[in-house]
Amino acid sequence: MADKEKLTMVVFSGDFDRALGAFIIATTAASMGMDVTMFFTFWGLNIIKKNEGPIKSAGIMRKMLNFMNRGGSKRLKLSKFHVLGMGTWMMKQLMKDIKHPTIDDLIKMAQEMGVKLIACTTSCGVMGLPEDAFRSEVESLAGAAYFLDEARNSKVTLFI
Amino acid sequence: MADKEKLTMVVFSGDFDRALGAFIIATTAASMGMDVTMFFTFWGLNIIKKNEGPIKSAGIMRKMLNFMNRGGSKRLKLSKFHVLGMGTWMMKQLMKDIKHPTIDDLIKMAQEMGVKLIACTTSCGVMGLPEDAFRSEVESLAGAAYFLDEARNSKVTLFI
Amino acid sequence: MADKEKLTMVVFSGDFDRALGAFIIATTAASMGMDVTMFFTFWGLNIIKKNEGPIKSAGIMRKMLNFMNRGGSKRLKLSKFHVLGMGTWMMKQLMKDIKHPTIDDLIKMAQEMGVKLIACTTSCGVMGLPEDAFRSEVESLAGAAYFLDEARNSKVTLFI
Repeated sequence: MADKEKLTMVVFSGDFDRALGAFIIATTAASMGMDVTMFFTFWGLNIIKKNEGPIKSAGIMRKMLNFMNRGGSKRLKLSKFHVLGMGTWMMKQLMKDIKHPTIDDLIKMAQEMGVKLIACTTSCGVMGLPEDAFRSEVESLAGAAYFLDEARNSKVTLFI
Repeated sequence: MADKEKLTMVVFSGDFDRALGAFIIATTAASMGMDVTMFFTFWGLNIIKKNEGPIKSAGIMRKMLNFMNRGGSKRLKLSKFHVLGMGTWMMKQLMKDIKHPTIDDLIKMAQEMGVKLIACTTSCGVMGLPEDAFRSEVESLAGAAYFLDEARNSKVTLFI
Repeated sequence: MADKEKLTMVVFSGDFDRALGAFIIATTAASMGMDVTMFFTFWGLNIIKKNEGPIKSAGIMRKMLNFMNRGGSKRLKLSKFHVLGMGTWMMKQLMKDIKHPTIDDLIKMAQEMGVKLIACTTSCGVMGLPEDAFRSEVESLAGAAYFLDEARNSKVTLFI
């Protein structure tokens, strides 16, 4: 039997709109029978952080960063028109209006459809993010070599 | 006869500079004999909206969004140094100076060279954009599955 | 002997964080035996400008642009939390703390590992950047056709 076609993404951005785009592509690809890996790095890690509880990191600067840059799927902001929350709130209403799944729904759907969610080891090291900062849908931490190995066996690779 | 090599792009950004990059790559690829598809989504839809007339959408929030986020190739802004229009104006002057085609020119050239311009159905649904909001060079509306089908048969796929 | 697998990137962004991501991927790929080309365009050109001396360009508008948009690996800013330099300074401290190479180090490493650094001819023309604005690790200037030729022979192509 032939291998499944692969799709690999680097999710670098933590913007609400780009996160939405990434998960729509990922879940659609999975529904078409593709084997999907999402590699979250830098601001993209915000998407897959737990929504609850504080993040425990060592050192004043890392504590400060993880306070300012708290993350969690429910705290993401539109890259434009956020305007103190108005634009992002409006976009969520527009999605609700046409019964579009939320980012939280899409993360759960993705994992149930077999999409692999990976957090970048290097970014976690720099930012002081422990493995338990991430939600249960995240499979594991891995580095750039892991991403490249997936990418070179993929039909499609995207940097989002 | 062998199939032509394919290039597929998601144009997610509506920034003047990224739009310019996308169309330079698209028209160059077409001139090299590649088969090019540009899939416009989210803010990227602004690039291919008509420059004239208001956009008719239903509901107060969608009307508001399409007023604030009017779009059209002539209203795009640089991602940096826009500064009340100064930076974007300056960039347009610099392009004129070396007789570089405008984004409007590039859209027409792209279509004449056979580049397929597609608007994302889901984004249009969320944002309340009717099909007649788009300029005549746009071929049709299609969803993420259409994009993925193009992408997995492409030599090169870019997310811009 | 089989050809080496290729990785090609467009580096469009000049943000500190995206530059860091681009060079981590490039050097990791080179260490895995891949043949890597980085094609710098638009704001991405800032990453490979010399850190020293002024940039000589002709015409008032180009002089102004190259003064405001000076660039150089040491002047890059985080895309978020830059806040008058605080955030970017903090990120550099966090990297130092875990002995992560700087962007300057990564550029040198990349070139020593055989990564090809190319500056986009068209952007240089629009922005009035002479070839000697770039650091010695940059191999040459080339256009979009060059990029596409590399990309269509690559296993992985990224737009960053």
